This record gives sequence, C-alpha cells and structure tokens, in this order.
Amino acid sequence: MLRVGIVGASGYTGVELARLLAGHPEIHLTVATSRQYAGKLLAEVFPNLRKRVDIRCENPTIEELIDQADFFFTAVPHKTAMDIVPRLLAAGKKVVDLSADYRIHDPAVYQAWYQEHTSPQFLAEAAYGLPELYRDQIRTARLTANPGCYPTSAILALAPLLREGLIDPATLIIDSKSGTSGAGRAANVGTLFCEVNDGFKPYKVGGTHRHIPEIEQELSAAAGAPVTVSFTPHLLPISRGILSTMYAALTSAGHGTDLQALYEAIYADEPFVRVLPAGVPPATQHVRGSNCCDISLQKDQRTGRLIVMSAIDNIVKGASGQAVQNMNLMNGFPETAGLMGAPLFP
Amino acid sequence: MLRVGIVGASGYTGVELARLLAGHPEIHLTVATSRQYAGKLLAEVFPNLRKRVDIRCENPTIEELIDQADFFFTAVPHKTAMDIVPRLLAAGKKVVDLSADYRIHDPAVYQAWYQEHTSPQFLAEAAYGLPELYRDQIRTARLTANPGCYPTSAILALAPLLREGLIDPATLIIDSKSGTSGAGRAANVGTLFCEVNDGFKPYKVGGTHRHIPEIEQELSAAAGAPVTVSFTPHLLPISRGILSTMYAALTSAGHGTDLQALYEAIYADEPFVRVLPAGVPPATQHVRGSNCCDISLQKDQRTGRLIVMSAIDNIVKGASGQAVQNMNLMNGFPETAGLMGAPLFP
Amino acid sequence: MLRVGIVGASGYTGVELARLLAGHPEIHLTVATSRQYAGKLLAEVFPNLRKRVDIRCENPTIEELIDQADFFFTAVPHKTAMDIVPRLLAAGKKVVDLSADYRIHDPAVYQAWYQEHTSPQFLAEAAYGLPELYRDQIRTARLTANPGCYPTSAILALAPLLREGLIDPATLIIDSKSGTSGAGRAANVGTLFCEVNDGFKPYKVGGTHRHIPEIEQELSAAAGAPVTVSFTPHLLPISRGILSTMYAALTSAGHGTDLQALYEAIYADEPFVRVLPAGVPPATQHVRGSNCCDISLQKDQRTGRLIVMSAIDNIVKGASGQAVQNMNLMNGFPETAGLMGAPLFP
Amino acid sequence: MLRVGIVGASGYTGVELARLLAGHPEIHLTVATSRQYAGKLLAEVFPNLRKRVDIRCENPTIEELIDQADFFFTAVPHKTAMDIVPRLLAAGKKVVDLSADYRIHDPAVYQAWYQEHTSPQFLAEAAYGLPELYRDQIRTARLTANPGCYPTSAILALAPLLREGLIDPATLIIDSKSGTSGAGRAANVGTLFCEVNDGFKPYKVGGTHRHIPEIEQELSAAAGAPVTVSFTPHLLPISRGILSTMYAALTSAGHGTDLQALYEAIYADEPFVRVLPAGVPPATQHVRGSNCCDISLQKDQRTGRLIVMSAIDNIVKGASGQAVQNMNLMNGFPETAGLMGAPLFP
Repeated sequence: MLRVGIVGASGYTGVELARLLAGHPEIHLTVATSRQYAGKLLAEVFPNLRKRVDIRCENPTIEELIDQADFFFTAVPHKTAMDIVPRLLAAGKKVVDLSADYRIHDPAVYQAWYQEHTSPQFLAEAAYGLPELYRDQIRTARLTANPGCYPTSAILALAPLLREGLIDPATLIIDSKSGTSGAGRAANVGTLFCEVNDGFKPYKVGGTHRHIPEIEQELSAAAGAPVTVSFTPHLLPISRGILSTMYAALTSAGHGTDLQALYEAIYADEPFVRVLPAGVPPATQHVRGSNCCDISLQKDQRTGRLIVMSAIDNIVKGASGQAVQNMNLMNGFPETAGLMGAPLFP
Repeated sequence: MLRVGIVGASGYTGVELARLLAGHPEIHLTVATSRQYAGKLLAEVFPNLRKRVDIRCENPTIEELIDQADFFFTAVPHKTAMDIVPRLLAAGKKVVDLSADYRIHDPAVYQAWYQEHTSPQFLAEAAYGLPELYRDQIRTARLTANPGCYPTSAILALAPLLREGLIDPATLIIDSKSGTSGAGRAANVGTLFCEVNDGFKPYKVGGTHRHIPEIEQELSAAAGAPVTVSFTPHLLPISRGILSTMYAALTSAGHGTDLQALYEAIYADEPFVRVLPAGVPPATQHVRGSNCCDISLQKDQRTGRLIVMSAIDNIVKGASGQAVQNMNLMNGFPETAGLMGAPLFP
Repeated sequence: MLRVGIVGASGYTGVELARLLAGHPEIHLTVATSRQYAGKLLAEVFPNLRKRVDIRCENPTIEELIDQADFFFTAVPHKTAMDIVPRLLAAGKKVVDLSADYRIHDPAVYQAWYQEHTSPQFLAEAAYGLPELYRDQIRTARLTANPGCYPTSAILALAPLLREGLIDPATLIIDSKSGTSGAGRAANVGTLFCEVNDGFKPYKVGGTHRHIPEIEQELSAAAGAPVTVSFTPHLLPISRGILSTMYAALTSAGHGTDLQALYEAIYADEPFVRVLPAGVPPATQHVRGSNCCDISLQKDQRTGRLIVMSAIDNIVKGASGQAVQNMNLMNGFPETAGLMGAPLFP
Repeated sequence: MLRVGIVGASGYTGVELARLLAGHPEIHLTVATSRQYAGKLLAEVFPNLRKRVDIRCENPTIEELIDQADFFFTAVPHKTAMDIVPRLLAAGKKVVDLSADYRIHDPAVYQAWYQEHTSPQFLAEAAYGLPELYRDQIRTARLTANPGCYPTSAILALAPLLREGLIDPATLIIDSKSGTSGAGRAANVGTLFCEVNDGFKPYKVGGTHRHIPEIEQELSAAAGAPVTVSFTPHLLPISRGILSTMYAALTSAGHGTDLQALYEAIYADEPFVRVLPAGVPPATQHVRGSNCCDISLQKDQRTGRLIVMSAIDNIVKGASGQAVQNMNLMNGFPETAGLMGAPLFP
C-alpha cells in the first residue's frame, strides 16, 4: 500500500481527493494537512466523509510531512505550491501538484500571467498531467503538473483537430461555463448562495483568465504553431461541472473529414473520454461525480464552422480525479483504479 | 381603460402578462383564454395571482372573443397564431402576437424554417416589436410581431455595431444560454426538475434553432447586407433569464472607436436598456423579473475580437414585458406604463 | 413627498427596501448609509438597481443623517440599532427598526436571548409591526419594531386559532424552512453556493433560535396565557421564502369549528394575507417577491391534529415589505402603496 | 457471478440500480426491461451510463425474463409488481421488490391505502427490507419488500426510542422533506423545473400519504403497541435527499437516558448509519449519492420534547442502494459490496 498525503485537504479539491482515495485499493491516506482545521478530523470539516475517511487534519513542518507519506498531492494555491514541491522532490517523494505552478513550461509566460517563479528548474521536468496526451511522460515523472479545469475541457476536445489541421486555429473561440466549486471554498460575497442561485454571468472577459496561457501552450503544441484563443469563462449556478462550447472554421481538410469517426477512433480505448453519438450534445449532469470527459462535434453547414462541445466534472476530471489518474500512472497502478464510478444522475 | 384580452393565458408568457397587466394603470384585463383550464380562475392555475388577478379562463369562439376586448395578446404557439390573428385584425382589433408567425418578413424564409404561411399578406404590414429599433412603426401598427427571446438579447446588443460597421459580420458567433421557462409549461421529461437541476447543456447545435432567421433578418437590416451567424442555445438550470455572449472581429473602424461611449450615447434615454460600466459583465440575476436588457462590451486586445454580452429576463423583455411595451406604444400610453419595476435581487 | 432614509442599505433587506421604495408614489429616498460601500452608488453594489435607484451610499455622522430625512428604516444588526434609534427619535424622526432590538416588550426576556438593552425605555412604546394584528398602534407610533421573518410566518397563521381557543397551545410545534437570504450577505463559508445548493438541513435545533421569544410573546398575547413552542428552523436552497408547517392538537372547540370559513372571514379584507382554498397547500414560489402571506389549514382526522401552513417571502413580508407597510401606516399613506406587485412565478 | 435483472429500468430507481450494480464485484447485469425504451441502450436513455453499463432495454415476456437472470429487482409501480413478482418466485427466482406491494403485512391495511391485493399469500413471507432491523429475515428471504424512502428515514431514526420506551408515541410528529426524484420520471407539469426551482411546498397534508401505514406498521412493531403518527411530506428543490425532522415528548425514561450514547452504541457497527456528534444536525448534501443514513438527536429542554433528525439519499438508502444491500444479504455477499462509495460533496 502506497502511503499518500494530501497537502491542503480542506478545500473542495481536498475533500474530493479524500473521497476518491477512500475507494482506492492500492493506497493508504496517511496525512492530510490544513492550517485552518489542524487538530480536527477531516470528517468534521466535511461530514460526507464520516465512517469513510478516518484522518485528522495536521499542520506539520515540512520534515514531519515528509516522514509520513511517499506520494503527495499538493492542493494548495499557486505560489504556495512553489514553496513546498521542491522540498518534497528533494526528499525523494513523487508529487502531483494541483496548482498552476508547474503547468507552464516557459518561465517568462508563467511570470507574465502569475508572478516570479522560484523554482523554474522544474518546469521542464514536470509532466503535464493530461494522460490522454502525455501518458508516457507521466508514467516516469516524479512531478506531474495537474492541468487546470478549463484547460482539460478544452484540450481534450480540440487537440486532435489541431493536430490533424482540420480547423483554422486563428478562428478559435472557447466559451466555457463552470460550476461554482471552481471558485473554491473561501468565504466570499461573490460566491454566496444568494448571489449565484438562479443566475448566470460571465467573468474575466476579454482575454484575462489565467488558464489562457495553459490552453494556448497545449493547443499550440498540438497545432505545431502558436495558437491564440478567445476564452470567456462564465459562472453556472451548479456545484460541479464545466461545459465548453468551442467554435472554429473548418479547413478544407476538415470539411472533407468524417470527424465523428475520427474522434471515435482516437478515444475508443480511453476509459474516461466518451465521444457522444452524432447529434447528442454533452451535459454536465451526465458526468457529475465522475472522471469522464464527454465530447460532441457538430458541423454548422450554414457557416462552415465546427462546434465542439465537452463536459467534465471540474473537481474530478478537472482536478482531483485526474490527479488520482496521474498518481496511478506514476506508480504503476491500473490507470482506472479508484476512478471507475459511473456519473451520478439525477 | 382599454379592454385587453390574453389568448393563451395558461403558459408562462400568459401568467407573466397577467402579472404585468395587474399593475398597469391604463388597461383592464377582460378576457383570458385557455382550452385546458376553461372554467377555472386563472389564479387557480397560477396561485401567485390570487387577490391580484380576478379573471376566469374561458374557451370562447372567435366571435365571443372579439366582443370582449379591443386589444389582444396572442400567446399561443406558432401556426395557431396564424389562425386567430387575421380574424382579430378583420374585426378591427389591434394585436401583439407573441408567436413567431409574423416576425419574418420574407414568406419563403418563414416557410423554410417553420411551415406554410396562411396569411403572408400581413408579413409586410406587421411591425417587428423591438421598440428600441422600430418605435415609430410600432406606434402606428395594428399588428406587432413580438420578437423572440434570443433575438431580443442578440439584436439589442449587436445592431449598433453592425449599423456603424464596427465589427465584421462574417465572424459573428452568438453563444446564448437560457433559463428553462423558455421551454414552456408543457409536461416533458426533458424539462423535469431532476433532468435540468444542477446541470447545463447545449441544444439545437449547428445552425438549427428557429430563432436564427429572425436574428439574421434584423442583423442584416442593421448591417445593410446579409449576415449569417453561428448561434448555439444552451439550457440553464434557472427559471428566468437569457445571457448571450457574442464574438466578432473588430473592423479597423471598430478598433478606432470608443465603443463604450458610443453605446452609452445610443441607449442613454432608453428606459429598459442599461449599458453597464466598462469591465462590468451582465448577469441574469440582475434583470430578473424586469423589462431591462443589460449590455456590456469588452475588447480582447490579444485576439482583436470584441465580446458583447447581454442579459434579459426571457419572459419579460424576451416576451411578455416587451409585449406590454409594444401595447403601450400602439395605444399612446407612456411607453414605461406598468413596466418600471426594478429587477428582483436576490 | 416624504424624505426617507435607509440606515444599512447594503444588506439584502437594504436592497429590497430600495427596490420597493423605487416604486412608491409618496416618498423620496434621500439617504442610504453603508460603512463598507460609502462613496459608491447603491446601484454599483446592487446592479439590479441601475436606472431605477439613483443614490450614493454614505457613511454620515448621526447629525448629518438626521438632516437628510424625516423617516428612517434602520436595517442594521441588533445592538447596532440600539445605538442609532434613540437618537433618531430624539431628533423627532419616525423609525421602522428592522432589527430585533425593540420587538421584545420585556427587557429581561430580551437580555436572556440577546444582550443588555441600552434603551429599554422604548420597549413599551414601540409598536410591534404586524399590521394585521396591531394596525391601530402602528398608525400612531413613532417607533415600530418590524417583526422577524419566522415570527411573521408563524403568528399570522396561528394567532386566530389561539385567540379563539381552537388549539391546545401546549402541543404547538413549528417546523420552519427558510431561504438563504435570511442568513444575510456577510461572507461566510456556511452560506456559500456549494454548501447550500442541492441540499437541506436544520440548524439551531432544540429551542435555541432567537426568534423563539418573539413568537412566544405574540402567541401568548393571542392565547391570553403563556405559550411555549418547539421551533426548528431549516435552511432551504432557495434565495427567498419561508414555509412554516405547524402542528397542534385541536381542542373540542377546534374540532367543532369550520376553521376554513373562520380564516377566510378574518382575513377577507387583508390585502396581503391570502387564505388558500381547502386542500391547497402554500408554496414559497407563489409569494416570491411579494408582500403576501399565504395560509392553509388542514385537519388530520387520524390524529386529531391541525396542520397550519404559511408561506411568505422572507425579505418582503418577512422584512422590507412589511417595513414599507408599516411606514405607510405611520404616515397616513394608503397601506398598500408600493406593495401591490403580484408575486413572480415562475 | 450472479445473473441479475432489473424490471423497470428506465425510472430513477432503475438508473440508480444500474449505476450501483456497475461497481458491484459479485454480479452481472444480464437483463433490463423497459416498455417505453425497448431496443435502446440503457446508456442512450441515461447518458451518464455510457462506457459503464452496456445493456440494451428489452420488453420480454415473463418467460423470456425468467431465463435471463437468477435474481431480480422489480422497480415498477405498485400493482404492476403484484403481477410480476409471484411469477418470478414461482420460477425459483429471488426478488427485491421496490414497490409498495409487499411492505404491508396486513392485507386489509394494504387494501385500505392502495387497492385489492392479488397475491396476499406473500405478505406474511416477504421480509421487510430494512437490514438494520431485519437482517436475519432478509438473509433467508426469497422475497424482500424494499422499504419506502420516507419510512426508511423515519424508522431508522425512531425505532430505538420506541423500543426502549423513551418517547411517548402518541405525540409523534414526522415532518419530512424530499428531493424531487422521489416523484419519479413521468412527464408532469407539477415536477417541471420551473414549478419546483427556487421554491418549497408541502403536499398530501393531513394524514393521506401512502407511506403512513408503512411507517406506523414498523413503529408499532418497535413500540409493541399501535402507533399513529402525523406525517407531512414536502417537496424540496433538490434532486436527491430526504430530511425528516421528528418531534415527540420524552417519557421519564427518556429524560433520564443518555440518548446520544445509546444511539452511538446501537449503530456503532452499522456501515450505513452514522450517528452524528451531539449538536451536529444532518444535511442531505452530506449523504448525496451514498447509502448512508445520518441521524442526530437533540433535546429541547424548554418543552421536554426530543427532536430527532435523519438524512438519506432517497434513491440510494431510500430505494436502490438499500435494494442492493438486501440483494447482498440474500445472496451471502458482503453486505457492503458495491455500496461503500462516500457521499458526493459538494
């Protein structure tokens, strides 16, 4: 049994990691840290975990932390991750980092969108933790940068099209809608129930959301040329789920390709990507609580554009589930271990 | 006091007309029809109306109907409207039709998207009931075609840009999200609470929604040239509200224009259009229950695109409120009569 | 036009007061205070108010405040109200206080449930602002204590039964469910969207909620003898609304009385109380946004108990709407001025 | 591997059975029936099941059905179950029936609340499928009547108190609130999203809900004397969950007992019952998607009453999860097989 620790267990990605790991056959959760709730049972903070997760939150020193586990999930804010991850690696531990700190390969880009990077030497080494694209690198990585939630929804849906030259990257628009858990568990007027309930709105409009460089890095890699996207996030009055609606002009190769067949072939053996039948759009309620990413493609004959749609659960495939998938790969476990639960509907 | 009738009072637009008319100083609701609920008080069907609306549903013949009112709202499905409206007009009545039957000027276009039109002679005569664009025609119309909900949200937001040549119409993408009341009150598995709650999905993807020809008709008129749009509707887990996020490449004129100032000027005197301050996106919860349309503009410097966003309450400005606004214009009442209630938040 | 001020305008009762007063024909809102948002337009804090309410938040001294209005709503937390209200009264102003500070007549009771009272001399003078019970006192009051939301829902439903001796007060159980706006607008993990959405729970169980002494005071007055109740509040995943389900054993007088007819008679002329037809239970969605209180009565023949149900909008009849109703009475305006809007459904 | 069939797979209990069975190590789902969707993949009807459940809906004759499985879940409406269950038993199959048809031991009571019973001979034989109370009978049963959702929530919470004489059964009031999935998946205006969303209401008030005789049967058995209860169900704007708030006067034995310690002891070894720490009320969001029943007890010193609260997921512990638990017992599988998933929060 692998001894596993969660650094930053009291956020929504933390509780979801604990839930998923409780059903994992190969690991043992040995430490969960929380500055705010140190001394409390994690199941007191998150009563859904009672009789399922029996661990107490701690606020250990880094040395104490290192002793207690061999594999770590760092589920802390960006910048905080940069402080912890290098020390875990130095102690010979493997890490899946759920923050943004090791996702961007180019330190200059990271610094333009975030802040100075204090351990840029790991940027080249870190695997980008999207198993459907980088399975082999992840298998041998000691540090995997778990992708952002919006990037996961966009990249899985768009990378094959760009790789094959089927859409014109200059026309790419990504209109994404996220459930409120993506905003985290900090007390905040803007995410109070009464502010969000029975409403809907965009935010960070106009090319300012920090997931943009991450999306562009991966789409550029797929296209083999720099890609710049319009990306607009919106806040949905739901707890979990991201639905991205993406638009691009088809190239003449794209017009001539059976895209449905292509996607079905590419993702046929992927346990967590489900290409929906032609004409069936995805829905967040059909991936709820699961590690699935549902993808649908629709040509618009009137405009020559392709509409690509994807749905994920933002705290599973968009965070904690994908992190467990990466842990499985990094440790030689079956990739699906602990993750095959079907989505919860209704 | 104008005697007013509602034909088709038992849908969501019907109950909303009744609610708005209950607070209107110039009219008297004298007849409300419903085949299904004939004989019942409208307040039995919609208990929110108790002690506020005292009218009984009837299922009158057209002759009986004509006797009972001088002004009619037809809130029935398309095709049914075509049967009733000409007879009301023939009897000298004025009509606001909330169906799609008289919105499309070109009978061939109507027939391509709907079905054969049995009274095409009224298509040219009918005013398109968007007062901010067609106030003068509506004032003298005897038949006003009340716009669709999605078209209202798109046209108010985009028409000025197209009129001034500030965006490239060939690049126009409209990503719209609607509350579930837009699907009507018919019993239907797809709109059951458990199917919609805590979820989100697109529908009628790929250029198939019937509001497309209506949007294109009006945007083409504004642009002075044919406009074809990509339009994707989505279903939100909220009762009321449409939020449209629209993308287009700026023309060089557009790049050079202070769009915020332009919009503030154009809509300054409109009681129901609110141009939000720069950087403030609209939200459906801030127009809930009101006849307001909130609009926001944001340039994306990285891509050269403009993002235009609008929010309306789909059964007020997107249906019944706009219908009352049109009634006010057609009868010389103050345009805002019965409609100045501030949105309900939270 | 009466000059009216809102002290504490940036909470949910504040924005609702502003919304209701915007449609009031007899008053002019001249001052709105907010420590946190001083200098900002109220419509920046609450964008639903744009183009409807044009006032800027201030943080005036009490002297500056007094100069600016002749009538005040104090919508601040209890204890804070005690500091302000006496000074407004001393300056000859009339006040509706929305806090708990002047609702409890007996200072000892207030102190047992809240804290020391610094102006107990006003407790006897303050009218309890439930117009259906105390209309005449309110008309002549200079200080009206606006009732709590739960008490309003319980007292309107139960007082007639207790007055007439139709139920046994010793058996009285009040099971109440409230929308989340009742918890206020303070940033708080417990009322974040993701904590409340798609869930339901009781809180302050076992006779500890501070609305209990207020409920008991008024029910005791109705019964003419001390009444002690079991009261359990619950948190609903809705923005607005309280539904109370109340249980009591019928007395023999109660068994012999046509309670439906009695309630219909008692409340026949009340514009805001709607006794529902026999067999029709109330629903919060049918009072949403309105000053209505819907009441329903149902005997359970198997157990000899009566079930009484009521529904209100907690921030209208349960707070700001009732406050405006009290203002109307205190100033000789029509009692319904600004308050006759029908509930918003759906 | 046990061959298992679901009769009536296209309702919400059907899809939940399929979801739970997909993760069950001991069984193989071999047949799923649906008149309406015969010929379609179950994953077409419920897209959450894609790549997880690979079975096609059929509409077989009873003979064809019998051939295809050795164990059956009948998830059909009451009355329909009576037609099928005896024929499955006659063929030597074991059955968990999720309808009401075999829950009531006394045919006269069944007939008073439902209709004539066509196979009353099985009423005495059927085990009442609440494992925490009847584990041994269920182990040897060939027919288990799966309890109703409301009864499960009430009986687990109240039976120990009645068994020990700690509360006065004559004072028992059960105020229950259920998510909308309890109303099933039939197209119905009353359960449309817009009718339920952002609202709350009671229904079947006054002792008329058909779960009453089932609750009373089991509470009477616990008390050793006839118990009559007041039971009021309410409709919550959530998909899943029942929260019951129950009130009763403590007996003198009850006043003298440490109820918290008693409940903790009784349920200590139960994997699915979680007695919450003193002062922590249950919440439906903390049992979502799981087979857990959370219970909390609170004395009200002011009134001498006990408040007992319980939360379950109505389609897991209240239906399909409990059915799988019963299947496990009836087949000698570990009782928790397929059911240990932690609740999904947020």
